[in-house]
Amino acid sequence: MKKAIVLLSGGLDSTTVLAAATNKGFDIIALSFNYGQRHNYEIECAKEIATSYNITKHQIANIDLGAIGGSALTDDMDVPKNRDTDEMNSEIPITYVPARNTIFLSYALALAEVENSFHIFIGVNALDYSGYPDCRPEYIESFQKMGRLATKSGVEEAEQLQIHTPLIDLKKSEIIKLGIELGVDYSKTHSCYDPLGKDEPCGKCDACLLRIKGFLDAGTSDPLNYPDI
Amino acid sequence: MKKAIVLLSGGLDSTTVLAAATNKGFDIIALSFNYGQRHNYEIECAKEIATSYNITKHQIANIDLGAIGGSALTDDMDVPKNRDTDEMNSEIPITYVPARNTIFLSYALALAEVENSFHIFIGVNALDYSGYPDCRPEYIESFQKMGRLATKSGVEEAEQLQIHTPLIDLKKSEIIKLGIELGVDYSKTHSCYDPLGKDEPCGKCDACLLRIKGFLDAGTSDPLNYPDI
Repeated sequence: MKKAIVLLSGGLDSTTVLAAATNKGFDIIALSFNYGQRHNYEIECAKEIATSYNITKHQIANIDLGAIGGSALTDDMDVPKNRDTDEMNSEIPITYVPARNTIFLSYALALAEVENSFHIFIGVNALDYSGYPDCRPEYIESFQKMGRLATKSGVEEAEQLQIHTPLIDLKKSEIIKLGIELGVDYSKTHSCYDPLGKDEPCGKCDACLLRIKGFLDAGTSDPLNYPDI
Repeated sequence: MKKAIVLLSGGLDSTTVLAAATNKGFDIIALSFNYGQRHNYEIECAKEIATSYNITKHQIANIDLGAIGGSALTDDMDVPKNRDTDEMNSEIPITYVPARNTIFLSYALALAEVENSFHIFIGVNALDYSGYPDCRPEYIESFQKMGRLATKSGVEEAEQLQIHTPLIDLKKSEIIKLGIELGVDYSKTHSCYDPLGKDEPCGKCDACLLRIKGFLDAGTSDPLNYPDI
C-alpha cells in the first residue's frame, strides 16, 4: 500500500480530498496546522474527520503564520461579508494568507521525505478561488518540480514526488457531488472564515457563500445550520 | 532603498550573507527560526548579530520541525564526530533536516510578500554541503520559479522575486575571506551541531571540522575556543 500525505484542514474541500485519496487505496498520513487562525475549532474538526476515516497517523504542526501577518485570517482585519461572485473574483481577497499553500506543502514535503512517501494530496481549487495565486495549476506543477529537487529522493531519483490535486478543475458543486458519491459526511466539515461559534457558520463570508451556492447547484442542501436561512 | 529578507541563523554562513546584503545597500529584515533545534542559543546569537547590524526588524518564527522528525539536529540521534571530508561527502548526513531550506524559504516568501520585498538572501553553499539536496543551484532556481508563481507579485507581474545566494559557489575559506573583508566579527557566530555549552563548540562534528579547516585555509584562525585545540 502506497503512503500519501493528505493536507487536512477539516474543511469541505480537504475532507473530499481525503475521501478521494482513501478511495484510491492510499495509506493516509493526515497533516493539519495550528497556524494562528482565528478559530481553533478547525483542528477539532480535522481530528474528528481523521478519526472517522480510521487514520492512525495525524500530524498536527504548530506553525507561526501570525508572526508573518498580512491576512484577515490571522490578523485583526475584518472578514468581508455579503460579496457577490464578481466582487469575490475581482481581486486577491484579504483572506488570502501570503504563501500559505507553499508553507503547507513544504511541511508536507518534509513529512513525505521522513515517511518515505512520494504522494501529497492538497485540496486546491482554481475555479472558486481564482484570486489565490497559489491555487493555480502552474503553481502546483512548479512546486512539484521544486520538491523533486529539494529532497533526498530527488537526488537518488528513485521514485518521484507527485502532488495530487483532485479538485483543481472542479466547481464547488462538482466537489460536493464527488464527496457525496464517496460518502463524505459534510456535517462534520467547516468552511466559514468568521464563525459565530463552534458549528455556527456566519453564512455571509466568501467561504460560506460559495459553500451554500455549491450545495444548491449540486441539487442538495448543506447539512450545516446557518443563521437566518 | 530596496528591502531584503535575510535568513539569519546566527551561523558563520548566514552572518556573512547578512554582511553581503548590507554591503549591497539593502534595507534588511532578518528572519530566524525556533525549529526545535537541540540548542536554542542559536537564536541568541542571531539576535546579537542582528542588533550589531542595527537591524530594527528581526522576525523570529516558532516552527515545529520536531513534529516532522527525521534528523539528528531535531531528534535524539547522535551527531557524527571526527569524520574526514570523504566520509562527509559520501552520503546525505543524518544532520540533514528534511526539506528545511524549503520550509525556511517558504516563510521568507510569505514575509517578502507581506513586506513588499522581492529579495530573499540565503546562505546555502553547494560545495561544503554537497550532500544536501536543498543547497544545489538547480534547487534554488526552481524555488525562485515556484515563488514567482506562488505570490501576488507573480500574478501582478510587477517586480519579480529573486533568491540571492552569494555563497553558493564559494569554499568555506572563501566565505571567511569575504566576511573578513566585509568586517564580520566571527566571534559572534556559531556553527557547531552539538555544542558542549554556550560559546563551547565541540570541535568534532562536521560543522566544526569544516569551520576550523576553513579558517586554516583562509590563512587565519577561528576566534572561537575549541576543546583540545
